[in-house]
Amino acid sequence: MKTNEDAYGRQLLAQYNNQTETAEIIERDDGFIDTGSDAGTYFRQYKEWSPLERRAIKLARGRVLDIGCGAGRHSLYLQQNGFDVTGIDNSPGAIKVCKLRALKKALVRPISDVDKFEPDSFDTVIMFGNNFGLFGSPKAAKPILRKLYRITSPDARIIAGTLNPYRTTDPDHLEYHKLNKRRGRMPGQIRMRVRYRRAIGAWFDYLFVSPQEMEDIFKDTDWRIERFIVPEAANYFAVIGKKSL
Amino acid sequence: MKTNEDAYGRQLLAQYNNQTETAEIIERDDGFIDTGSDAGTYFRQYKEWSPLERRAIKLARGRVLDIGCGAGRHSLYLQQNGFDVTGIDNSPGAIKVCKLRALKKALVRPISDVDKFEPDSFDTVIMFGNNFGLFGSPKAAKPILRKLYRITSPDARIIAGTLNPYRTTDPDHLEYHKLNKRRGRMPGQIRMRVRYRRAIGAWFDYLFVSPQEMEDIFKDTDWRIERFIVPEAANYFAVIGKKSL
Repeated sequence: MKTNEDAYGRQLLAQYNNQTETAEIIERDDGFIDTGSDAGTYFRQYKEWSPLERRAIKLARGRVLDIGCGAGRHSLYLQQNGFDVTGIDNSPGAIKVCKLRALKKALVRPISDVDKFEPDSFDTVIMFGNNFGLFGSPKAAKPILRKLYRITSPDARIIAGTLNPYRTTDPDHLEYHKLNKRRGRMPGQIRMRVRYRRAIGAWFDYLFVSPQEMEDIFKDTDWRIERFIVPEAANYFAVIGKKSL
Repeated sequence: MKTNEDAYGRQLLAQYNNQTETAEIIERDDGFIDTGSDAGTYFRQYKEWSPLERRAIKLARGRVLDIGCGAGRHSLYLQQNGFDVTGIDNSPGAIKVCKLRALKKALVRPISDVDKFEPDSFDTVIMFGNNFGLFGSPKAAKPILRKLYRITSPDARIIAGTLNPYRTTDPDHLEYHKLNKRRGRMPGQIRMRVRYRRAIGAWFDYLFVSPQEMEDIFKDTDWRIERFIVPEAANYFAVIGKKSL
């Protein structure tokens, strides 16, 4: 068994090379396991995205940072449309796939290292595919938001998608929310890892929040939610701007 | 986390109730994990079976015992065609599904307990869906074969399907064969368990063999392989009769 491997990236590489047609497997820290995105999801073309994502991507302006870019589906779309876009992902395999797919700017970099970019490097930060979750927890979000503030222009925006964790009636998920509360975590703070064949990815926190919870996270930060896109839906987006404006 | 649960049966029940559309998840004891049969596979109608299974089922005669009947797809087909058929499975959930699907004779019973049937109860034993694997190992097969001898008629046959484990070039599988040899197991002796949501099934051995290996298993038993059906293929069947004849 190989733990802390780049299971996610290996899977994307296998998908890129047409070596697998199986869905990804995600394990949660209560032992719950399920298939996640089908093979191909991370490679979907614009026309195959959800209407919500197609709507949200229209808000990108200027120089774009794509956090958790995966196989680069959003970055490549923006690049093809003339944007100066940089994709980052903490998965070396994912970034390898992005480069194979001709994404010009693709870097292995976790969200916690966004301060490695120069000040005022980006005008838009996109966190698609529920990647608001990469903030991990309200506490972990604060320093990341400070770093994002520094590396972006004064009128920059973060466009981030998430899933409202309370839009479920699944007993296993509701019980997990309770478990999280008991251990002082947010109900939708999912500790998970990717498994791909013999590779076992590192555990990481992925945060799902309600619109109200997201509002709370931005209190005491230099960012504020300008508006939500379909906050009443299970999947929704937030457009987040700098408070100084 | 709930271990040694009837993960397989829970999954079949969820499929029966249309509560899931995801493929089963199988974990091997080297940490290799993958999706197995798609949702629906265990419920396939005769016309959706492989040509090999459609060919093999024609050999059933008289009273039939279906070992590892799952959701009952083979038993139900035989019942519908006028056979006296009994399905057994060690999964309570599987047997519940069989009963919900109106299989008249369905029992929770592991293959090791086939001696609970009266002598001369069956004329055909079917082990479809690679269920030759339920013999587990050459050693475990011997007492089971003696029990099957007792509960079947003098001219009874076992019709068993398997997968030739050497029909792979997958490095992970080839390495697993080597691991098995090092620990004194047959290369195709797969120690696996089913995972479904939070349920984790018990580990069990499932045996894949080449035609030659299968021949060897029947040495020193009262059974002999009468013939193979497409032994040159990855999936093949054996028709096994009593030596006394």
